[in-house]
Amino acid sequence: MQMIREIIPLEITEVPTGKAVFDWTIPNEWNIRDAYIITPSGEKIACFKKNNLHVVNYSIPVNQLVTYDELIQHIHSIPEMPDAIPYITSYYKENWGFCMEHNTLLSLPKEGKYNVFIDSELKPGSLTYGQCYLPGKSEKEILFSTYCCHPSMANNELSGPLVTAFLAAEIAKNKNRYYSYRFLFAPETIGVIAFLNSTGESLKKNLAAGYVVTCVGDDGKFHYKRSRRDNALCDRVAEHVLKYSGNNFVIEPFSVGGSDERQYCSPGFNLPVGSLMRTPYQRYPQYHTSLDNKKLISFPSMRETVEMYMKFTELLEINHNYKTTLLGCEPQMGKRGLYPSSANPLYNRADIHRMMHLLAYSDGESDLIKIAECRNESALLYKDMISIYLQQKLIEKAL
Amino acid sequence: MQMIREIIPLEITEVPTGKAVFDWTIPNEWNIRDAYIITPSGEKIACFKKNNLHVVNYSIPVNQLVTYDELIQHIHSIPEMPDAIPYITSYYKENWGFCMEHNTLLSLPKEGKYNVFIDSELKPGSLTYGQCYLPGKSEKEILFSTYCCHPSMANNELSGPLVTAFLAAEIAKNKNRYYSYRFLFAPETIGVIAFLNSTGESLKKNLAAGYVVTCVGDDGKFHYKRSRRDNALCDRVAEHVLKYSGNNFVIEPFSVGGSDERQYCSPGFNLPVGSLMRTPYQRYPQYHTSLDNKKLISFPSMRETVEMYMKFTELLEINHNYKTTLLGCEPQMGKRGLYPSSANPLYNRADIHRMMHLLAYSDGESDLIKIAECRNESALLYKDMISIYLQQKLIEKAL
Amino acid sequence: MQMIREIIPLEITEVPTGKAVFDWTIPNEWNIRDAYIITPSGEKIACFKKNNLHVVNYSIPVNQLVTYDELIQHIHSIPEMPDAIPYITSYYKENWGFCMEHNTLLSLPKEGKYNVFIDSELKPGSLTYGQCYLPGKSEKEILFSTYCCHPSMANNELSGPLVTAFLAAEIAKNKNRYYSYRFLFAPETIGVIAFLNSTGESLKKNLAAGYVVTCVGDDGKFHYKRSRRDNALCDRVAEHVLKYSGNNFVIEPFSVGGSDERQYCSPGFNLPVGSLMRTPYQRYPQYHTSLDNKKLISFPSMRETVEMYMKFTELLEINHNYKTTLLGCEPQMGKRGLYPSSANPLYNRADIHRMMHLLAYSDGESDLIKIAECRNESALLYKDMISIYLQQKLIEKAL
Repeated sequence: MQMIREIIPLEITEVPTGKAVFDWTIPNEWNIRDAYIITPSGEKIACFKKNNLHVVNYSIPVNQLVTYDELIQHIHSIPEMPDAIPYITSYYKENWGFCMEHNTLLSLPKEGKYNVFIDSELKPGSLTYGQCYLPGKSEKEILFSTYCCHPSMANNELSGPLVTAFLAAEIAKNKNRYYSYRFLFAPETIGVIAFLNSTGESLKKNLAAGYVVTCVGDDGKFHYKRSRRDNALCDRVAEHVLKYSGNNFVIEPFSVGGSDERQYCSPGFNLPVGSLMRTPYQRYPQYHTSLDNKKLISFPSMRETVEMYMKFTELLEINHNYKTTLLGCEPQMGKRGLYPSSANPLYNRADIHRMMHLLAYSDGESDLIKIAECRNESALLYKDMISIYLQQKLIEKAL
Repeated sequence: MQMIREIIPLEITEVPTGKAVFDWTIPNEWNIRDAYIITPSGEKIACFKKNNLHVVNYSIPVNQLVTYDELIQHIHSIPEMPDAIPYITSYYKENWGFCMEHNTLLSLPKEGKYNVFIDSELKPGSLTYGQCYLPGKSEKEILFSTYCCHPSMANNELSGPLVTAFLAAEIAKNKNRYYSYRFLFAPETIGVIAFLNSTGESLKKNLAAGYVVTCVGDDGKFHYKRSRRDNALCDRVAEHVLKYSGNNFVIEPFSVGGSDERQYCSPGFNLPVGSLMRTPYQRYPQYHTSLDNKKLISFPSMRETVEMYMKFTELLEINHNYKTTLLGCEPQMGKRGLYPSSANPLYNRADIHRMMHLLAYSDGESDLIKIAECRNESALLYKDMISIYLQQKLIEKAL
Repeated sequence: MQMIREIIPLEITEVPTGKAVFDWTIPNEWNIRDAYIITPSGEKIACFKKNNLHVVNYSIPVNQLVTYDELIQHIHSIPEMPDAIPYITSYYKENWGFCMEHNTLLSLPKEGKYNVFIDSELKPGSLTYGQCYLPGKSEKEILFSTYCCHPSMANNELSGPLVTAFLAAEIAKNKNRYYSYRFLFAPETIGVIAFLNSTGESLKKNLAAGYVVTCVGDDGKFHYKRSRRDNALCDRVAEHVLKYSGNNFVIEPFSVGGSDERQYCSPGFNLPVGSLMRTPYQRYPQYHTSLDNKKLISFPSMRETVEMYMKFTELLEINHNYKTTLLGCEPQMGKRGLYPSSANPLYNRADIHRMMHLLAYSDGESDLIKIAECRNESALLYKDMISIYLQQKLIEKAL
């Protein structure tokens, strides 16, 4: 959180242990100072200070001598990826454990005693999440939600907070925002449940569109996962922008395998929240291991993701239902200096057609995406024209 | 009816001749004791007692000597199928006639007198239909309707009453039925019109789904013909079950060429009634002839049809709109013993996903079929899970 | 207008210069007596009296000597079509100009003085349009709209007024019309805007379907351009008739490139108006030039178009929602003499099925087009049957 604050301001919320949040309860706070195993020959392995994945997250403290057979009950490794340390948690069952490379596990002697040491603490404390809120002209808001519970892995999940922070900094530059923007940094699942417990009712009222930002740092093609509503504003904007972006992309339906969209889209909320990713969780072998590291992500890739999300917001800002101010028939564009004076058969009809098309469909019932898709072209092409028409009072936003 | 009663109990209704039933009137009752033709050489042919198809159904009594030329005005045969006796009726025009193999017709001498004899009687009596009603927890009911006006033919139509009776016996075994079930055995058209005249208003109120059971004894692939509503519960259940059954099948739109679904689906009723068949009427050459006989049908085929209809009822019983009891976010499955304790990357995510999927879509607006089709899998896979969730009060039936 | 009056009666409306019609103002009336250019060698070229396209429409009067360089600022030609005189207008910018074959332009000497002469007049007057209204039983009306602002070109646009006039004469023969019919002959754009200014509110109330008749004289295949509503009655009728006509045809979505449908379909009106054409404007090279002449069109082609539009009206007249008068089940057709007496397996089931199909779908919610398309056949096949059923009171028009 402190590092994110170097990029954007964050308002921090602490939710105390024991507080009920919907069906859940905020658990004890887990803190850990050190952890390792001393082998019978005195070698120190699985050092927390070398790689924090070596300890099963939420392990209770332990300091004892165990046999090899006792030890391996508490060891996690991946035989298929012998050089990877897996990422394992045990949030809701009291336990302790170590994670290590399978090659290390194979090298351990079966005789002698091992000293397992975890200097951790599980006691009442709090769950922490941070928000950045950028007010706009409207109370209607756009949400970007990312999680920060295991940032020592790179694509999933350091890339999410980084992209979200830089996106917030970029959006903050536009002082003329129609929408308000909210950026959430919270632990996955329980963090978002706690956030929804306090803010969900307000989101039900004001959320126009939201996105879960995760797995956004590698160079895989864009994957957009729809909200449970399937055709909400977040989905229509994402799919329209991707379609005319020139990029390769994949659209996926909502499914419960995933991240915090599960909470936002749960039946009690059913919020318009989708997720734009690069290579999604579980689709790359390094996922949830120590091999999901800096080699997998890059700043250019994260910059591309920021730019794609920026296009989403650019479209959100102009994608309204417009309504002609005229009582009937098309306007006389010539007297407004908006039409070529002479009907030469060789002028550029395509430009005039786009101009007249926008007016012909400004019926108060079609939004800009629908209007642009009638001509199979990007709604962003209409940005300047909309400014001029609003200024000349040829159209107005429909209520 | 007496034979059907050996399988299931039947409540018999008699509707008297002359009674008006909607646009129709119950006709005189036709009874026949004997019928035959004596040829000029004294040979007895077209004997009713050998095959009851030899007499045009509803023939008036006759006993006279006629010439060959007079005779053939009253003879029906099929030149293209010279060994088949056609099935002919003359319900609404007073007439008499014989049906015979075309080969027999060709062999008749053109000289001499023929004695035509029909010992029938047309007089006030009653139309008879039988019902078996199995009450369930709900007054909402499922109807299986079959016809019994020409059971001397096999696929169309002895197979219908047989399958319906064995289906009723099978459903009666389930003492925990949600729906009530009604099984109707009636003459085609006029019998169902009489039944609807007395029971139609109650069906409008209570019928959840219905099926016309006909042509279900041969080994042809399943044909499902939709109700006129096209997407009623009967249609959705039938098509979902067939799709995930592993069987070959054909889906057909509603059309007026057919059977009693014409009455159920007429605009005044518009009931949700479709029809699951094997090879439908008019699609096999033996249809409506003496060649539609026991060789065409088999008990294994009829058993298969019973089993398919049983799957329909199995799905009907669980296909409700379910609603989560939670106010927001997903439930904590762990504290209910419904979730693996440790997030090992190698556990079976598919099972967990199905479990969470059901909860994520229990929004009170999606029925189980829709929920299962989101994952492109059979709704019957969710049967046990629904029991557990209902028991643990994680979901409830939406009203 | 005087020539059209030889075919049908026309009521003429004059709209005075200066009158505001929605966003527009009726301009000065332009009249021209003569126009030509005298070359330095004394040759008279670009004579208005030889071809009225030689003068830019709405040119102001001029009579002066100009150099070659001055002259060519006012000359329009088409290098790619060196023998064509282009059709050019300058309605809303005061200017003068000549149009000529590019070959003529190339032959002009660059030395010496040219006398340009246009004897025109721009002064307050009126815009003229004509209407023929044929009342029917209902105030609901069908509109055929055509334009007459440049009838010296043939496919676009002499063919439009001719087809419309002959269509009106044909429809006038039917004395038993359900709908009222209106035929409009007006200058494109401004003429229709003036017409809608006076009649638009009445059309909003009464217009059932309308068509813009343009480019209907060549032998190209039929092109139907949908109304902005996309699925209005005009569209459904046109597409149904074309589909079962045996003709080749093309269906096109609404777009603003086009003709007076732009005004009818503008958001303030959104009327159900499409357009049946042969080869549309801008799709043939002679469009808007002197080569769009009598060679391009023919009376047989225009007759074909009249016949196709006649089929549209034939369908419009019978395409209602019908409702069975029966309370339930199908009617007994036999007692009404509408059913074969004996169920011989060889009778024509297709005919009986169509007969029963119409009754089965007379639910008050399906119009005839929908009913016929269920059987994938032309709704016009049901014309006689509907007469009989209405007469026998088996069905009635639903309100």
